[in-house]
Order: sequence, then C-alpha cells, then structure tokens
Amino acid sequence: MENQRIRYLQHPPAFVSFAAVGGFEEGQGPLGGRFDHLDNTDRFGQPSWERAEGEMGRQCLNIALKKADLSPSSLSVLYAGDLQNQCVSSSGGLFSFGIPYMGLYGACSTCTEGLMSLALFLSEGGQSKEPILGAAVTTSHNCAAERQFRQPIEYGGQRPPSAQWTATAAGAFVLTSGKGEVRITEVCPGKIVDGEMTDATNMGAAMAPAAADTIRTYMREKGVSASSFDAIVTGDLGAVGSSLLCELLSEDGIDIRANHIDCGLCLYDRQTQDVHSGASGCGCSASVLATKFLPAILKRELNDILFLSTGALMSTSSVQQGEHIFGIAPLIRLQSGA
Amino acid sequence: MENQRIRYLQHPPAFVSFAAVGGFEEGQGPLGGRFDHLDNTDRFGQPSWERAEGEMGRQCLNIALKKADLSPSSLSVLYAGDLQNQCVSSSGGLFSFGIPYMGLYGACSTCTEGLMSLALFLSEGGQSKEPILGAAVTTSHNCAAERQFRQPIEYGGQRPPSAQWTATAAGAFVLTSGKGEVRITEVCPGKIVDGEMTDATNMGAAMAPAAADTIRTYMREKGVSASSFDAIVTGDLGAVGSSLLCELLSEDGIDIRANHIDCGLCLYDRQTQDVHSGASGCGCSASVLATKFLPAILKRELNDILFLSTGALMSTSSVQQGEHIFGIAPLIRLQSGA
Repeated sequence: MENQRIRYLQHPPAFVSFAAVGGFEEGQGPLGGRFDHLDNTDRFGQPSWERAEGEMGRQCLNIALKKADLSPSSLSVLYAGDLQNQCVSSSGGLFSFGIPYMGLYGACSTCTEGLMSLALFLSEGGQSKEPILGAAVTTSHNCAAERQFRQPIEYGGQRPPSAQWTATAAGAFVLTSGKGEVRITEVCPGKIVDGEMTDATNMGAAMAPAAADTIRTYMREKGVSASSFDAIVTGDLGAVGSSLLCELLSEDGIDIRANHIDCGLCLYDRQTQDVHSGASGCGCSASVLATKFLPAILKRELNDILFLSTGALMSTSSVQQGEHIFGIAPLIRLQSGA
Repeated sequence: MENQRIRYLQHPPAFVSFAAVGGFEEGQGPLGGRFDHLDNTDRFGQPSWERAEGEMGRQCLNIALKKADLSPSSLSVLYAGDLQNQCVSSSGGLFSFGIPYMGLYGACSTCTEGLMSLALFLSEGGQSKEPILGAAVTTSHNCAAERQFRQPIEYGGQRPPSAQWTATAAGAFVLTSGKGEVRITEVCPGKIVDGEMTDATNMGAAMAPAAADTIRTYMREKGVSASSFDAIVTGDLGAVGSSLLCELLSEDGIDIRANHIDCGLCLYDRQTQDVHSGASGCGCSASVLATKFLPAILKRELNDILFLSTGALMSTSSVQQGEHIFGIAPLIRLQSGA
C-alpha cells in the first residue's frame, strides 16, 4: 500500500514576520508598492550580480527580523536556497547572521520547500517549554540566473513566447513553534515528475505535470475538491504552464480554474512589461507570498489556501547533454487563526 | 541569550538498512571489500560522468531497499543532494523511485545534513501509530566534480599536496520512526563559518574552522569532553584539515586527538594511492559511514559517536570572483541500542 503523502503537523507553527525585497521590474509590477524595499539599479550596491543576489537576501531577512524586533541569535535554524550553482547566493549572503544553516536545492520550488522544512523542524521541537524560532529565505536574480542558465543579458538574445522572466526578488519568513495568526497546518512533499521536456525556455510546461501530480494526490488523499480552499496558488507556471496545469487536472475530473492563482502571473503586468509567459525564479513565489497572500490571510480576505512553489530540476550541463527537465511541486496548507 | 544549538529528538529514529557503492579507487582502498557494489570502470554503464553519478546513487538506494525487503512506495520521504550544479545527479538518478523528494545542498556535508533532516522528519511523525520510513542518499563522482570545479581529468593538471581526491561513491540510508539497533538521538545544525580561504585546492583548511565551531559548541552546551564519545568522526578534512581542526580546538582547551577519525583519511591508502591530502566529496563520508562506522556500531565495537560531515560552500564563479570559501559542519549523534 502506498504511504499517505500529506503530513499533518503535530504542532503547526505560525508566521511571526515576513518581508520581500525586489529590483526594478518588480517595482513596476502590480505588487510593486507592497515590497519592503526596492533597488531600481538591481545592484544592491554590489560589484557583481551574484553578490547583489546575496545582499538582497541579507537585506530581506534583516527587514523581517526588524519587523519582529528579533536578533539573529534568537533563531534556531535558517533554511535557504537559490538558483546559483552550489547555492552560493544563500551561503554568501546569509552567513553573517550566524544562524544554524540548512541549505536546500529545490530550484524555483525552494520557497515552499524551505517553509515545509522549517515547519517540520518547529513542529518536531514544538513540545519544548519555550517556543523556538526559525527562518526561511529564498532569492533569485534575473541577471545572475540568465547568464548562468541561458545567456548574459547583454547578449540580447531573443526569447520565445513560452520563456519567463526570472524575478530579481527575495522573500524572508520568520516562524515560531508558538502561536500566531497564520499557521502551516499540513505539508505535502513533491515527487520528481518527468514531463519529458528538454526546452530550457519553456519551464512552465516542465513544471505543470509536477504541480498536477501534487494537487491530484492531495485532493484524493483528503477526498476534497478545489472549492474547499479559498485559493490554490502555484509558484511560477506562467501563462503556458498554468493553462497546461488546468488541462492536466481536468483530465482527472479536477477543476481548479475558479480559484487557481499563479504567482508567475501576479508579479508583473504582462500587458506593459516584457516578461512573455510571466515571472519565474525562486524569488517569484517567495515575494508574491510575502506581498500578496500572507497580507490577505492576515486581513482574513483569505483563510485557507494551498501554496505550491514549482521547480524545474535542470542544469546547463544536463540541458546541453539532452537530459529531461524534471519538475517538482511541494505543497503547504496555510490557514488563518491561532 | 543565544539559543541551544543541539536538538534532542523527541522520537529518535533508527537505521533500517544502508548501502555503499563506489568506483575503481574506492575498491583499491582499505574499505574496498566492504562496499556493496564496485564498478571498476567508474562509468556504471552510462555515456557521461554526470549520468554515471546518478546511476550510482540509484543502484545504492536500490541495494539498501533490497536489504530491508522494502518497496520505494513504503517510504514517506527521500532527502538527497550532490555536488553537481543544481544537484542534477540526485534528481536525475533518483526520480524513478517516485518517493516524495527533498533536495539539499550542503556540499560535502550533505550526508549529515540529509540524515539530520530525515531524523527531524521521522521524529516529527514519530507519534503516528504505524512507523514511518524515509531515506537519505548522497553521491559524488570524481570525474564529474573535477571537470566542473577545477579541470577535466584528461587535462592532467598537477595538484598541490593540500588537494584531495573527490570520491566516486554513494551512500544510501533507510531509517524508521520505529525501533532499531542504531539511533540518531541528537542533531546539531552547522553554522556557516568564514575561514577566509580562497584556494579551491585546499578544502580541508576551508572546512576545519566550521568543524571546530560545531564541536566546540556541542561540547560546551552539553558540558562534556571528547572522551565521552567512542569516536568523533569528521567528513573529509583530509590530512591538512584534520591537523588544523585539532590545532584550532586545542586553542580552546579541547583535545580530540585520541578519538578523532576523519573519513577522508579512511577511504584510501595515502601511501599507495595518489590522493594527496585524502578523500573528499559528498560520497566520502556517506560511504565510510556505511562501510565502517555503522557496521562497527551494529557489532557494538562502537556505541556512541559524533558524526560531522564537512562542506565547503563555493562555486566555480564564486572562486573566480575571489569570494571566500565558507565551511559548514552539521553534526549527528549515533548511539547503539533500541
């Protein structure tokens, strides 16, 4: 018999604070006014794009800690990851906090993977007398990612309509094993799904089958439908991947169209910004969670959502060697109420 | 006040089975006879070194599952990571098992990071009626790593005496939230430590300060000395890093010389094999744990050990940009007895 994939957390942890930091394009988008900090130069005062990404993550966690008046030493753990080779943005940007560190690689699914890992850590320690605290941070930088995975932006290569715009953005989340107004109540790790894609400029199509797999599994295990939730939020499928996800699920009799929202379609205005199929990158779902969904849950405009960041598991070498681009989509359930 | 860094697991999980797979050099070393499978071609039947690494990990987990007569679908989670950009060895090699997947990046510390993450996951779920199962897998491949981080081996570049030999090896571990003869009782995440190293051919020196930090913190928090344990095992400091670790700790009045063992000095015979300062790579500590330390605990030759894999957090870009190579050393405590 197959195992249950959903984990019902013993001691559901709660959000203490969160922050989002972004660059120029993010400031121009519909959520621009809700970012905690924007740097219109995308440089964050640094000499390289790689360093800029690390600095953006550092600033973002710093803001989240300040909002809650917490010092780094009060945190028991920090989960982080990014798209740079060997995740050097996270280690280089966050080492100065001195928080016990767990590095993750989940591609653009890292925001949810980090929150899931942190939720499991805090729930495990949830029986201790004093609440314990931890953080999850995720970043991506357009210029660092594009030159690593595809071409340096200075080259000006033409992108196909299915391509997405890697967000220059960071999200930081501080959680407690104690009480709070937004809790992570369930987690559901993703499976690696092979959609047999090899085109590195069509990430949406590579990730949609993984999102469909997780949503289908979740609905069937619980015996619920999409209408049980205020929203079903995916990370960065973009226009191409979102329509593919809905199509794949409808083949199984699951209709999420009425309450599906993709972060990749929230961050930019596709009519006025040159982002093709939408936003992508680890920082996309992280910053949209911090600027749009968590504030909406705090205001009780939303009370119960499923949140799945979506990742494409590939490297420059694996694409050049003709390997398939796998997808993965971990899920967390966010609920209002202490 | 600073938080306690040691986590005392609520429901210490236990090992169910484990396996190690290696290549030619690993077969020539002192532990060669204890590997579950060796491929003297290092190719594992694959057309590229990158694919060979993935296949090695697949074979290794397959052997560990077979030893315990378990099907992949009985596992609730799989933690994995490697050294290839975007950890494509793990995702490409392990996707076919269909086990819910959590990708890690901890460089050569990934074996301990994976076991720690898995232990937290199983401990969190340890209150469920039926025991839950999970696995952790780590791989490294000499030829894939060398051409990615330094030079293709065909180039024949000369290596300095401080350089280490990236192991072509995999380790796979299956754990349960139920009973067993070897348990993980405590975990202690590592902090990112900046030893101000920039030399990518001296990883031992980059990682030793992180190992010293974790051991120092652990000893002080518990108020114990090195003699409280049967062994203090580090991952892949090699000869240079090991002597540096002992020196750093002796400055703090901590003497681990009598029971310190480095996996990087166990895997090969430095007198007869051309490995300079010793072994390295994610697969080093993973395969030495599976071939040397876990068997010794099962035989009760050892009953209580501290196990710290050591990682150097860097990428080709970060080294070329002159960034520091950070170290990290997560720790787990392994004890015999159900």
